Amino acid sequence: MALSVGILGLGTVGSGVVQILLTPEGRSPLLQGVRIARVGVRDRQKTRPVALPPEIYTDDLESIVSDPSIDVVIEVMGGLEPARSLILKAIAHKKSVITANKAALSRFGDEIFTSAKEHGVYVMLEAAVAGGIPVIQTLKQSLGANRLSEVMGIINGTTNYILTQMQQRGESFDQALATAQALGYAEADPTADIDGLDAADKIAILASLAFGDRLRLEDIYCEGIRHITTPDMQYAQELGYTIKLLGIAKSTEIGIDVRVHPALIPSHSSLANIHGVTNAIRIVGDPLGEIVLSGPGAGSGATASAVVADLLNLIATKGGVFNPLMGCLHDGYAKISPIANLQTQYYLRAIARDVPGVIGEIGGVLGRQGVSIRTILQKDIHSNLADIVIMTQTVREGQFQEVVDEMRHLPEIESVPTVIRVVS
Amino acid sequence: MALSVGILGLGTVGSGVVQILLTPEGRSPLLQGVRIARVGVRDRQKTRPVALPPEIYTDDLESIVSDPSIDVVIEVMGGLEPARSLILKAIAHKKSVITANKAALSRFGDEIFTSAKEHGVYVMLEAAVAGGIPVIQTLKQSLGANRLSEVMGIINGTTNYILTQMQQRGESFDQALATAQALGYAEADPTADIDGLDAADKIAILASLAFGDRLRLEDIYCEGIRHITTPDMQYAQELGYTIKLLGIAKSTEIGIDVRVHPALIPSHSSLANIHGVTNAIRIVGDPLGEIVLSGPGAGSGATASAVVADLLNLIATKGGVFNPLMGCLHDGYAKISPIANLQTQYYLRAIARDVPGVIGEIGGVLGRQGVSIRTILQKDIHSNLADIVIMTQTVREGQFQEVVDEMRHLPEIESVPTVIRVVS
Repeated sequence: MALSVGILGLGTVGSGVVQILLTPEGRSPLLQGVRIARVGVRDRQKTRPVALPPEIYTDDLESIVSDPSIDVVIEVMGGLEPARSLILKAIAHKKSVITANKAALSRFGDEIFTSAKEHGVYVMLEAAVAGGIPVIQTLKQSLGANRLSEVMGIINGTTNYILTQMQQRGESFDQALATAQALGYAEADPTADIDGLDAADKIAILASLAFGDRLRLEDIYCEGIRHITTPDMQYAQELGYTIKLLGIAKSTEIGIDVRVHPALIPSHSSLANIHGVTNAIRIVGDPLGEIVLSGPGAGSGATASAVVADLLNLIATKGGVFNPLMGCLHDGYAKISPIANLQTQYYLRAIARDVPGVIGEIGGVLGRQGVSIRTILQKDIHSNLADIVIMTQTVREGQFQEVVDEMRHLPEIESVPTVIRVVS
Repeated sequence: MALSVGILGLGTVGSGVVQILLTPEGRSPLLQGVRIARVGVRDRQKTRPVALPPEIYTDDLESIVSDPSIDVVIEVMGGLEPARSLILKAIAHKKSVITANKAALSRFGDEIFTSAKEHGVYVMLEAAVAGGIPVIQTLKQSLGANRLSEVMGIINGTTNYILTQMQQRGESFDQALATAQALGYAEADPTADIDGLDAADKIAILASLAFGDRLRLEDIYCEGIRHITTPDMQYAQELGYTIKLLGIAKSTEIGIDVRVHPALIPSHSSLANIHGVTNAIRIVGDPLGEIVLSGPGAGSGATASAVVADLLNLIATKGGVFNPLMGCLHDGYAKISPIANLQTQYYLRAIARDVPGVIGEIGGVLGRQGVSIRTILQKDIHSNLADIVIMTQTVREGQFQEVVDEMRHLPEIESVPTVIRVVS
């Protein structure tokens, strides 16, 4: 059961993996057969937090993926290139690959998995989504009895941290982002997280595993949290809701409904009580019902735990027949249901000039478009302006966008700063 | 990848399994290779909720476990015998076994797994604990990188339903039990559930997977929920806690601390918000941190989903090398840390005669035994009696039991109806 691994990258996750492999006592006995053959790094002279002999390091990453003595390549360098090319070369050299690289998988999954199938090797990706939560293995190996209808979750810890701070401490978005950056939860350029791009990479992967077809990243509707304000948090709470950034994938009759956006979810629901950087994924299937998996979505130890879980599965199947549950069975692209077809409820906050008849005007716009109101709140901001908060009944997205446009043109309306979908 | 299965029992779970196998469309493509060869039932004439040809049924269960054309035996008949003997015979005939039988596994795991190892077959048990939640596969195949320190959870739906009714609706234990029985969540003889015996079977299995050694059921401290009252629920809530029946297994320096008992847990904690018949398991490991898996802990569909997950794993590895992650690697019994050594906080409710100085007397007893008080509440019940509720700081179990004994002998104390451990 001995297995020789090459590791590409020795950052946070790579160091975590090496740390586990160097201290196998008390962990799975299968780890005792693992040998770290080579570790590829950019700068061989840099001081490292792990105690490996210096001759293990190389800055020639190509030499790792083509080394015939290496069985498995662990790609934890991140980024699109050269990660993609190195993964493909490792596969071409008949090595199974373990990767935490959600960005490369969501963009190049097609060529990576097609090549892996051709060469009869595995591409393992537990660490690519939701860190230490075993959601990939659950989807691949535990839920095959089911017709899955929904995978939905909090899959970006940075934004969940920011939203939690805004909700629990009343911080503004900018304040909460600054705190997250100070604590290392958000990067200096936070775009990928706060605009929902990282969550889109991950929901693409989860949806593809849940529904059996590949997804094109550009087909995923993606909206971030920059426009969420503290008053919205407070109004949501008054209405019995919490605002979370969700990755959502649902199976519908006209294709997969897949999207990333902030959403009002009922405060008593399982996902509403996931705070801080924690991730959680809800999976619904028939006949299973609903399960929720939660835990640390990032960090050296949690992500390394997932990488090594994949490694253990490769050790356990080494020399055996190809295990189809561990492989990728897809060969087509999924049909996507366009966002304009979405049927959902909405939360809308308008700022109105405090003149008589404004509620009547708004009600008129909604009524003419056939949109029913579930709840309406009016709160004075100061002498001349009032927040008007509306929750609608279920309406088609395309239709509701027309309502919002029309409302923005009402003379009584100063602006419509926030429109958020409601998810139950 | 074709595979022939024999099913022992066609009750709730068995029917759910057959239902899945008869309708493979939209589920894992691997299911299309499964053939139901024989179904063993007590009464061949009974009307069944599933559409199988009559010649598939047999009341000769022995003939299934010895049939050379059958690859895998699914034991979903329950009970200790003849389930144990049939499982052992199937193994002796070199068949892998899938079982949902937590009672048989927790009692006869030693001989079952030893025999399975000898014969090179698998005994799969995802359905034995927590229904549709993939906790067994998670422990066996996803967390091997970790040194696990704790597995703890709500693993009995009946008692969680009862406690939820008591908490949310103020029902008494007897009322809530009657409701649970009327809804089919509790059996006519509810002993196994409400006295914690079912939870003990399950925590024995989880602890053994988490910590790598077998456990003797008689070594597990087990206390049920009959003595929990509505006032205790209310006081717990006032103090910021919820009362749940927990299965707990922790790794300590002197052995495994494993027990089942009701516990006060902080109301904001992940397990406190698991309501009704839902199950949830928290697993803590290094370097992972904490993950929580929740979902339906029982029911036809959820449990059948787990059985079929095991079946898919057997199909996927058929003809390959033996997969050690799917097998059982134990060969010794764990050392158990006795309950008297437990260090924990306590909740205690005493009924005191409302005479001056009673708090002083109680404080004196606690003080002499070196037990510090964290919180104390006094509430009049009626003119002559008062509830005195105490939460202590951490103390050794053995020592605290002496405090309780001494308190019971105080002339000012009418009774000490409730003592509950606090778990954080």
